[in-house]
Amino acid sequence: MPSETTEPRWDPSGIVTLTTDFDTRDPYVGMMKGVLLRAHRGVRIVDLCHGVPPQEIRVAAWMLEHSIRYFPAGTVHVAVVDPGVGSSRGLLVAEDQGAAFLAPDNGLLPAALSRDARYHELDLERFALPDASRTFHGRDVLAPAAAAIAAGLAPAAAGRVLARPPVGGRSIAPRRIDDAALEAEVLLADRYGNLVLAVRPADLGGDLDRWRVEIDASRVAGATPTETSLAIRGTYADVAPGVPLALVDSYGAIEIAVRDGSARERFGLEPGARVVLRRQG
Amino acid sequence: MPSETTEPRWDPSGIVTLTTDFDTRDPYVGMMKGVLLRAHRGVRIVDLCHGVPPQEIRVAAWMLEHSIRYFPAGTVHVAVVDPGVGSSRGLLVAEDQGAAFLAPDNGLLPAALSRDARYHELDLERFALPDASRTFHGRDVLAPAAAAIAAGLAPAAAGRVLARPPVGGRSIAPRRIDDAALEAEVLLADRYGNLVLAVRPADLGGDLDRWRVEIDASRVAGATPTETSLAIRGTYADVAPGVPLALVDSYGAIEIAVRDGSARERFGLEPGARVVLRRQG
Amino acid sequence: MPSETTEPRWDPSGIVTLTTDFDTRDPYVGMMKGVLLRAHRGVRIVDLCHGVPPQEIRVAAWMLEHSIRYFPAGTVHVAVVDPGVGSSRGLLVAEDQGAAFLAPDNGLLPAALSRDARYHELDLERFALPDASRTFHGRDVLAPAAAAIAAGLAPAAAGRVLARPPVGGRSIAPRRIDDAALEAEVLLADRYGNLVLAVRPADLGGDLDRWRVEIDASRVAGATPTETSLAIRGTYADVAPGVPLALVDSYGAIEIAVRDGSARERFGLEPGARVVLRRQG
Repeated sequence: MPSETTEPRWDPSGIVTLTTDFDTRDPYVGMMKGVLLRAHRGVRIVDLCHGVPPQEIRVAAWMLEHSIRYFPAGTVHVAVVDPGVGSSRGLLVAEDQGAAFLAPDNGLLPAALSRDARYHELDLERFALPDASRTFHGRDVLAPAAAAIAAGLAPAAAGRVLARPPVGGRSIAPRRIDDAALEAEVLLADRYGNLVLAVRPADLGGDLDRWRVEIDASRVAGATPTETSLAIRGTYADVAPGVPLALVDSYGAIEIAVRDGSARERFGLEPGARVVLRRQG
Repeated sequence: MPSETTEPRWDPSGIVTLTTDFDTRDPYVGMMKGVLLRAHRGVRIVDLCHGVPPQEIRVAAWMLEHSIRYFPAGTVHVAVVDPGVGSSRGLLVAEDQGAAFLAPDNGLLPAALSRDARYHELDLERFALPDASRTFHGRDVLAPAAAAIAAGLAPAAAGRVLARPPVGGRSIAPRRIDDAALEAEVLLADRYGNLVLAVRPADLGGDLDRWRVEIDASRVAGATPTETSLAIRGTYADVAPGVPLALVDSYGAIEIAVRDGSARERFGLEPGARVVLRRQG
Repeated sequence: MPSETTEPRWDPSGIVTLTTDFDTRDPYVGMMKGVLLRAHRGVRIVDLCHGVPPQEIRVAAWMLEHSIRYFPAGTVHVAVVDPGVGSSRGLLVAEDQGAAFLAPDNGLLPAALSRDARYHELDLERFALPDASRTFHGRDVLAPAAAAIAAGLAPAAAGRVLARPPVGGRSIAPRRIDDAALEAEVLLADRYGNLVLAVRPADLGGDLDRWRVEIDASRVAGATPTETSLAIRGTYADVAPGVPLALVDSYGAIEIAVRDGSARERFGLEPGARVVLRRQG
């Protein structure tokens, strides 16, 4: 007779993904992989991304949110952007969309996961390495816990009931100016200089053809209207090389790009900048 | 009674390599790995290189060409430098030297593979994820196809007869000035500042001792002839620290280097620059 | 009746780690992985770190030294920082702490391993690929040897008795100024701008509370004593955002940091700089 307290079903894929702001110039990621392999020899480790800008919790959440669906069910996703490491901030283990998640309790997971996510507090003492540091819980606590969950421990059984709700994430949703205009943030610039906006097609009511992304004309010397009021196209190749455009990008978000060029350089826009989207007619 | 249309023999190693211009600061590579693992749990994924400069099809081809022979037969090599993504450009699946190759039809594979390579047109609709984007065919089409081929599908069976020859690659061969001189391109600068020339020993008739790489003397303040007419040495340690040299490098190509230093900085040469090689006596 | 010459026991984990100064913008690491997989299909490869600054043997040794204990026994660690490649410098295979090590004989391993490490000279001819280069022994000699050891060959059986002791490493130990003061080197700056000092708690007699890291006040405009005489804290979150501190870091070494900021930028200190640690009272 199953009840609410029955051990939840957990069928691990054996895969652990890592998302961090560690970069790869240091051996921090490599150390985490050693811990994972020592605890569970059969684990499969995938670097989701280590290029999160330092301490940028919202960017890590965005990257994780848009990557989950590409991985098999039963995958364990570990995300470490952890400015509060070693303080009294807690560690979370969560379940959502058939996958498990481990991260500091700093807003990262609530920003990345669905409203149906179930959160637990990870038991730091249970999983910590004997010589755990106060500066690197990704290696000393989260990696051992991830190995245990990838090896079969149910996520809920790795944690306990949360004493309070998880720390909330800072919203990245666009701000509605009026019926026909939104102000949105440039969330990140990728390696091509594409500017990813924190706006999804749903925020535009799905009617993409009527919207334009507006760029402050003073940013572009001698700019024509084509360069400062960007229609939302289907793909980069819909414009000629060197021409700016907006499009639905590989995250499924609205992006400002320059074909075969860098929108970041062309417009002098950096992450954190704000742009206006306006509906025509 | 075998015929031309018999299913070709394909014995996969289970390994998929990835060569892209994505860099690793974004989760694009990680997303591709998720797709590969979801489609074929047993796949082994190797990052060949994600540091191809943006849109540099010829550099990706060069890196792939010089790496194939280090991998087991039956490996699937996926190369994604794709300025035309989402346009009408096709996708190729090829076989060469016992390995399989997947890439956009933009000159990359013909520049990397042998003259014996067999090309097919990949069926985009067959392999595309249900929610395929128009901006990321590496993840949404090539990764699922690579997983299928790594799991046993013969490359030829993954494609159909090409309607026209593959798009040709731009040549990087050195230009013959006269009997005793070649002009060659600096194809890339590696992390040490070594300048890799698009010249192989065979282009010099194999007689390396008689050739010099000439550097425009105006590039080096107070330069001595030793610094501007570089003999082709055996290895970096054949000269003293800080001294420039030419040598046959890890690609098997001619390279300009400075021992324990950066030829890129010393000579102010960037990829795309041209240098002259001259035969003595 | 066992004797000194009995074949040593070696129980490989099947894992090979790679530590290099190659960066990942080039395919050099990828080529090594191909060689490893071609020689031993079941090998598990872990990138420990490829961000060692060019030719920085001591940094590679430091990274390796502090990572060994996180990996399973029986792991093969390959470290390639090799300014003398192709010269008469030898190649080493070593055993220490239950693991195997392969590296050029240039001081790297003696700096990383314990005093109990056992060294042998690797037989270059035995393991070299048929077409071995003189510029890339990591790929052409060390990778084939690592694959053989990961597959079961005892490290001692892969080498022969050393003709002379291994080349010694340059010391990074702090210099004692007097009973109450040490001068230490900034060994590396990590991606956050944390400055890792070549000082361990044991160098301070374990009594961390009495020591301060002193920063030259002229480096910080308008600096208060809190900013130039740094107590050794437990973790970053022990100070407010933007405040500098010293702490025992993820290497178990003393580090200068700025919470949520970059000590490298704040203090204008680069690797190679020296700072003073002073005992109070």
